[in-house]
Amino acid sequence: MIYLDNSATTYPKPLAVRRRMAEALERYGANPGRGGFRMSMDTAQAVYAVRQKAAALFNAEGPECVSFQPSCTQALNIVIQSLKRGDHVLVTDLEHNAVLRPLKAMEVEGVSFTVVPVTPCDNDATLDAFRRAIRENTRMFICTHASNVWGIRVPVERLAALAHVYGAEICVDCAQSGGVIPLDVTAGGIDYLCCAGHKGLYGTMGTGMLITKQGEKLRSLIQGGTGTLALQLEQPRDMPEYLESGTQNVPGILALGAGIDFVRAHGEDNLRQREMRHVRRVYDAFSRMQHVELYTPAPDMQYFAPVLGFNVRGMQSEAVGEVLAKRDIAVRCGFHCAPFAHRKMGTADDVHGGAVRVSPGAFTTDAQITELIRTVSALRAGTTAEKMHRQK
Amino acid sequence: MIYLDNSATTYPKPLAVRRRMAEALERYGANPGRGGFRMSMDTAQAVYAVRQKAAALFNAEGPECVSFQPSCTQALNIVIQSLKRGDHVLVTDLEHNAVLRPLKAMEVEGVSFTVVPVTPCDNDATLDAFRRAIRENTRMFICTHASNVWGIRVPVERLAALAHVYGAEICVDCAQSGGVIPLDVTAGGIDYLCCAGHKGLYGTMGTGMLITKQGEKLRSLIQGGTGTLALQLEQPRDMPEYLESGTQNVPGILALGAGIDFVRAHGEDNLRQREMRHVRRVYDAFSRMQHVELYTPAPDMQYFAPVLGFNVRGMQSEAVGEVLAKRDIAVRCGFHCAPFAHRKMGTADDVHGGAVRVSPGAFTTDAQITELIRTVSALRAGTTAEKMHRQK
Repeated sequence: MIYLDNSATTYPKPLAVRRRMAEALERYGANPGRGGFRMSMDTAQAVYAVRQKAAALFNAEGPECVSFQPSCTQALNIVIQSLKRGDHVLVTDLEHNAVLRPLKAMEVEGVSFTVVPVTPCDNDATLDAFRRAIRENTRMFICTHASNVWGIRVPVERLAALAHVYGAEICVDCAQSGGVIPLDVTAGGIDYLCCAGHKGLYGTMGTGMLITKQGEKLRSLIQGGTGTLALQLEQPRDMPEYLESGTQNVPGILALGAGIDFVRAHGEDNLRQREMRHVRRVYDAFSRMQHVELYTPAPDMQYFAPVLGFNVRGMQSEAVGEVLAKRDIAVRCGFHCAPFAHRKMGTADDVHGGAVRVSPGAFTTDAQITELIRTVSALRAGTTAEKMHRQK
Repeated sequence: MIYLDNSATTYPKPLAVRRRMAEALERYGANPGRGGFRMSMDTAQAVYAVRQKAAALFNAEGPECVSFQPSCTQALNIVIQSLKRGDHVLVTDLEHNAVLRPLKAMEVEGVSFTVVPVTPCDNDATLDAFRRAIRENTRMFICTHASNVWGIRVPVERLAALAHVYGAEICVDCAQSGGVIPLDVTAGGIDYLCCAGHKGLYGTMGTGMLITKQGEKLRSLIQGGTGTLALQLEQPRDMPEYLESGTQNVPGILALGAGIDFVRAHGEDNLRQREMRHVRRVYDAFSRMQHVELYTPAPDMQYFAPVLGFNVRGMQSEAVGEVLAKRDIAVRCGFHCAPFAHRKMGTADDVHGGAVRVSPGAFTTDAQITELIRTVSALRAGTTAEKMHRQK
């Protein structure tokens, strides 16, 4: 399989990640923080070590700023559901439904939001658009760090500075960028960083993180046993337990630690450079194909993450995906849970029904990219494509 | 290690569970329901197969009644946070903080609750107490299936029938009982079953389930990408996706499937009989020791789950745990996130500071139980115990 769906989840996982997960079941199999015996304490210690690694990777003030979550979606929900009646929020037109749906649900609670366009390759224009959209009651910017469909980066550090000038906070959705584009939450003034564990950090599905130094200010979303103050009916406000009720995904967390080690050993910038080279090769080849439609300027390190959305003229994106799947090339097609991002490029309502997304990972090879380019090149015209489609 | 903390999480996990988790990372590593290529579809199919297994185990109407959750705590939160202003709830005095804390938090939303005592070994008395506590606005009973501290079973099927007579619903917390005490949600009239995956079902930490045929009626708690209706900002109401936003814990879910297979292969009743025999042996031996305090009648199959709480007279429960830990015997001590359960037996405020809990599992041996009995027997008097404690 030529796996080019690393934006959905990275595959394969590094050997060390798979080994660590197996080891978690053997050696760290007790419930952490609940028992006073050796294995329970060892498990708690192992979980704590991953907290430290994550805090270091994003330069959070300390490990207590890192709360483990079952997904980036859940991390975002905690932040968004903590908004209060009358609050106004600015979001980019690249956001995922993990931001848009909880925000939409908060409308009944009196929260409103404005969708602000991001201008690719022009951060000043994006900043201006945000500045113009700020209202008296704007409390938060919620911004993806990079589009999960088009790879477009959002200047979150500059937006953080802007938000703070107006007394607002910023929450960054790093689902696509964690482990790929470095982000320093302290220097960058990122109030809330939400991250998936199973994408660029090479952990396993079922893991995410919310990183913030003001977790106690948030609504805890779920309440329950924290292993602390057991006789107290009120949820204890101490971070990170406050946001981690119930038994945590220990094998997932330990595997995530190995994933973070993998990223640090190779270097986020190195990994991204490699992946951007793949994406750029695909872009350049596709831009020479009359039958391929591209939607962004040529992707570079500064303005793009290694994600490329495209279409084949006259073909549904899903049909292209099927042809590629027949050649054992795995990409994602259709809508990518990002409605405004599709409207932005006109792929929400047109013949393509979304877009085909190529997202390389650490294990993607030049030969695999060559094969992708060759296969898409063969989809030369509508009729040819349909013929290929019928042949499957 | 003599592991007797299976109520916190079962250990070790069956070989098939560990193998399945490894296999999940190798063969089912794509994001399910998001891609049209083979591995994504295979992964979706593998997840669906676990849904079917879980539905069959609890006799739910269909696999769409099963939603995977990161924990039993989260499943309970979904049900409890769906209560509405003015609703009144009855809970037992054995509930875990996973029930009590979200309920407490719902007080500000206008939800009230009454704690009803369970009478061990007298279901009629328990039923009467619930009947007397019902009010005009009682909307739900929330009952643990078995106490996580004292092993006391709650007659949830009879309570379900009672609730329905009064137009109320029942939610059962099967954290301790799933895979241990059979429960038929259809015949038993259980409206909401919340279950951990990593205890009696032998899955891994980070898994749980909410089983109900009326999931669409609930608040979804988190909203986000569901892989369905991607252009729609409102969370789609189709079960089970409605309650499963974001990428799910695929390795955990597949391992849970292997855990369910393990339970079915051995039989819940057989496993429980074995474990109850261990508990009964401990109980009988402890009841002959002057220095050991027991809190319940002798545990039998009908009225108890295989969980035993005890104390050593004059010793803090944590100190007993430390002595046992020195002998490599793993038990949980202190408060077990169940404040009313401790008050019920007087262990909330006394010298013991909670209780020592013994919970055997499928892999517990007679020799291990003998060693536990021998070790506790040696803690003959306060001074001896303290001496042993000092020696560590």
